Amino acid sequence: MTDDAVTNRYPTALGASSRESITLLGEDLAADVMGNVGFGELAFRLATQRRPEPGETRLFEAVLAALADHGFTPTAMVTRLTYLSAPDSIQGALAAGLLGGGSRFLGVTEDCGRFLDDVLRDAERPSDDEGWDALALATVRARREAGQLIPGLGHHVHKDGDPRTPRLFEIAREEGLFGPHLRLFEAIGRVHPQVLGKTLPLNGAGVCGAALADLDLPLQLLRGFALLARTAGLVGQLAEELRNPVADDIFRSVDLNNVPVEPEPYRSDG
Amino acid sequence: MTDDAVTNRYPTALGASSRESITLLGEDLAADVMGNVGFGELAFRLATQRRPEPGETRLFEAVLAALADHGFTPTAMVTRLTYLSAPDSIQGALAAGLLGGGSRFLGVTEDCGRFLDDVLRDAERPSDDEGWDALALATVRARREAGQLIPGLGHHVHKDGDPRTPRLFEIAREEGLFGPHLRLFEAIGRVHPQVLGKTLPLNGAGVCGAALADLDLPLQLLRGFALLARTAGLVGQLAEELRNPVADDIFRSVDLNNVPVEPEPYRSDG
Amino acid sequence: MTDDAVTNRYPTALGASSRESITLLGEDLAADVMGNVGFGELAFRLATQRRPEPGETRLFEAVLAALADHGFTPTAMVTRLTYLSAPDSIQGALAAGLLGGGSRFLGVTEDCGRFLDDVLRDAERPSDDEGWDALALATVRARREAGQLIPGLGHHVHKDGDPRTPRLFEIAREEGLFGPHLRLFEAIGRVHPQVLGKTLPLNGAGVCGAALADLDLPLQLLRGFALLARTAGLVGQLAEELRNPVADDIFRSVDLNNVPVEPEPYRSDG
Amino acid sequence: MTDDAVTNRYPTALGASSRESITLLGEDLAADVMGNVGFGELAFRLATQRRPEPGETRLFEAVLAALADHGFTPTAMVTRLTYLSAPDSIQGALAAGLLGGGSRFLGVTEDCGRFLDDVLRDAERPSDDEGWDALALATVRARREAGQLIPGLGHHVHKDGDPRTPRLFEIAREEGLFGPHLRLFEAIGRVHPQVLGKTLPLNGAGVCGAALADLDLPLQLLRGFALLARTAGLVGQLAEELRNPVADDIFRSVDLNNVPVEPEPYRSDG
Repeated sequence: MTDDAVTNRYPTALGASSRESITLLGEDLAADVMGNVGFGELAFRLATQRRPEPGETRLFEAVLAALADHGFTPTAMVTRLTYLSAPDSIQGALAAGLLGGGSRFLGVTEDCGRFLDDVLRDAERPSDDEGWDALALATVRARREAGQLIPGLGHHVHKDGDPRTPRLFEIAREEGLFGPHLRLFEAIGRVHPQVLGKTLPLNGAGVCGAALADLDLPLQLLRGFALLARTAGLVGQLAEELRNPVADDIFRSVDLNNVPVEPEPYRSDG
Repeated sequence: MTDDAVTNRYPTALGASSRESITLLGEDLAADVMGNVGFGELAFRLATQRRPEPGETRLFEAVLAALADHGFTPTAMVTRLTYLSAPDSIQGALAAGLLGGGSRFLGVTEDCGRFLDDVLRDAERPSDDEGWDALALATVRARREAGQLIPGLGHHVHKDGDPRTPRLFEIAREEGLFGPHLRLFEAIGRVHPQVLGKTLPLNGAGVCGAALADLDLPLQLLRGFALLARTAGLVGQLAEELRNPVADDIFRSVDLNNVPVEPEPYRSDG
Repeated sequence: MTDDAVTNRYPTALGASSRESITLLGEDLAADVMGNVGFGELAFRLATQRRPEPGETRLFEAVLAALADHGFTPTAMVTRLTYLSAPDSIQGALAAGLLGGGSRFLGVTEDCGRFLDDVLRDAERPSDDEGWDALALATVRARREAGQLIPGLGHHVHKDGDPRTPRLFEIAREEGLFGPHLRLFEAIGRVHPQVLGKTLPLNGAGVCGAALADLDLPLQLLRGFALLARTAGLVGQLAEELRNPVADDIFRSVDLNNVPVEPEPYRSDG
Repeated sequence: MTDDAVTNRYPTALGASSRESITLLGEDLAADVMGNVGFGELAFRLATQRRPEPGETRLFEAVLAALADHGFTPTAMVTRLTYLSAPDSIQGALAAGLLGGGSRFLGVTEDCGRFLDDVLRDAERPSDDEGWDALALATVRARREAGQLIPGLGHHVHKDGDPRTPRLFEIAREEGLFGPHLRLFEAIGRVHPQVLGKTLPLNGAGVCGAALADLDLPLQLLRGFALLARTAGLVGQLAEELRNPVADDIFRSVDLNNVPVEPEPYRSDG
């Protein structure tokens, strides 16, 4: 046992307080941030320690809007059921919902951003649409040969196109933020039928990942932004549950339809 | 076991999808929300199912800014330590941090909003400052006699005044949103020394509760808004941890200074 | 900023390691605990820092068995739905399920234990059944007059009696552990019809709280033991979900029956 | 929108209730389980839907004991800090702690069990120690050539040997449960110095994974058993925190040693 702790110092550029003042990212919280900085911009600043341009904030907030709520997803159901069971803990209901934000549902945003970034790291940056199409074609072929899916391609409901995708392309173009990740993603949308033999939609979760990557946000945190957006959605789910509760109906629709069966002893070779 | 489930229908005004479109609160998500609605406004809409006025959004976002991050709070430490231990699960690190958003740290916002609202429900609405002072004085006296603290009064660091409080008063006045909860809270700030014999600051968590209540947000969800703000802060904490990690130092500062002691058998009458 | 940290030392009687050995509660983990101490006894020891008698362990484990799993509860559904959504994080699925262990479902155990203990703290300990009946009668009357329910009384399914209750009474008697909390709870079962005008069952969650209190376990942690029991149940729910998944059916039964409705703007006076 | 939900039925062999009885895995909970089945055995049954032999229960409980608590780990600190911040929610404090049970700390158990099982699936089962050594040698060489670590090999504290490992070997041998996963793991302990040029200890988390795999428990849930064990440990941490709190000292040791630094704007190419 040593006195290692003695020398510990914990640096941070985030919140700090003294008797008279509170700073956040080096700014006076009360005077400079409150009343002047919107919540989307604030989240961007907290994650990057830099001030986004107004166009960056607009694109970022469009992504958050795209991901905030999709109705009765498993995460929304989980938040409502947890509130039913433990109404004393709003934080538990929200946290439980966020825990569903993993590889299957919210993961596409992160997976797509990382996938596009990996391709771009290893490739020359094309100078025109033909170049992007060639890179996209090589990318789709390589994934196909490796037996891997293309993140961001395909949607079980929006089979003819996810309406969020062209809208996010449009916003990014309006703001001069249509960068390499979005260009590559768009090109994949154009060329993949040549390889796959069918046309799949570029989905909204995927395009959000591409846009977040073009905003130069940390790739390791792309899922974090999806979770932030979802937190706003889950607060909305809770607000609706408080006024028009359905969780007890959901619970009973399952509980009343349970079918007791005999135990099946588990054997790994079974 | 019955077929109760058959007739279940689950109404929601939040997200809904068809093959061609996605709606959110009755609006076309891609065309009308993305690119047009900021994240703070979106969160307000999701929780209330109504469109806030621009001034309401500004006050709401000022509250979120006030609550987003306070440096190395227990919640921030928890998110960093959980990430250290389970870097595979960003959702787990954020959820763990939110679970600290309970009665002691984040609870003041909710407690203060509810407390003010309870007083206002039972009282005639005063017409001038003297009237508010009288109501505040009666309120402080009643709490004192009941041996109860006043939510929102006092701060362990900002002993001479929390800088967020006058700033939020100012923003609310600028936007014409200085409503009864804020008026009562301000009056408590003026009159409490007459009863308590000392001057305590009106703290930032409390004034945020008053402002959220004046925005007519659901009182049961005030903690939810504090948690939403904190989610943005925790994403920032994670982003900083990724670049300048301190969680392992925190862990080791504790682990290396552990002192093994003998078990103390627990007895309830001990 | 000071050097307060320098003097920090963190005492613990729980796990400690050196290069050669690991101790737990002052014992050699490998030599004395592993292979010799069952899991129920270990949990008891960890919570109380004392070794239970075999009869205490048996009663404690009977309580854990009573609380481990009740089929498709909201907590079980939450664990399954979270796994569906985030199969990469077993810890997230279990944690999400535990978050439903709050006031409404798992809370009865804690509420009942605390309620009985509060009564016993303020009362002379009766010496015979008549005395217990008199105390129980006074207790039920006082609650009734205060408009409060009796924790542990009533069950929505087991209207004629919860089979766990007489069984736990029996085990406690066999082990010489039928203490004051169980005696008072049993007496409430005898006398409450005189006050309430109808006979309600003493429920299993309640009797478990009484038994845990008679085991002299910390009242603040009674919910913690219910959660420990439930963790074993949730691992079972996950194991079954892996082999015979139902979460996707549950999700789709809700999502496919969603009914889009118009937003209802929230007004607190609405 | 269709009536797909109508036909939903949810089969389960776990808990089921009728007005008169409660069953668990096809047995009468009150009559057959409570008072007769220890908590470790119950957890085993819930996960496998089969009754373990007494020796299986003993080995399983030895594993749970080995994993229950290791003092001030990040998970223990998280549970204590969350309780400090939200003392109203025991479930939140436990859930937050479990969320640290991911790839880095608790993951070794699962990784090691899966790794050994993968090798065994592709190999002939050796008939003697020389055969096991040969398989182990080939395995270690292959991992080394692929630049991969051997799960379960090495420990930052117990550099000369983790005392849990020989003890678990011993218990497994006593119970006739020293199966192929443990044999391979033991052989890796014998042969790895030939390849790595140094002797590393077989760690306790790894041997637990090998033992759980030899108990024929579902590999996808090995982390779940580690989390179950840890839940008992976290209840112990909470119990100690209630009596001898250290969380506030931990919090202040960090908060008081924070060092405000300038923001560092994030750029992915930085």
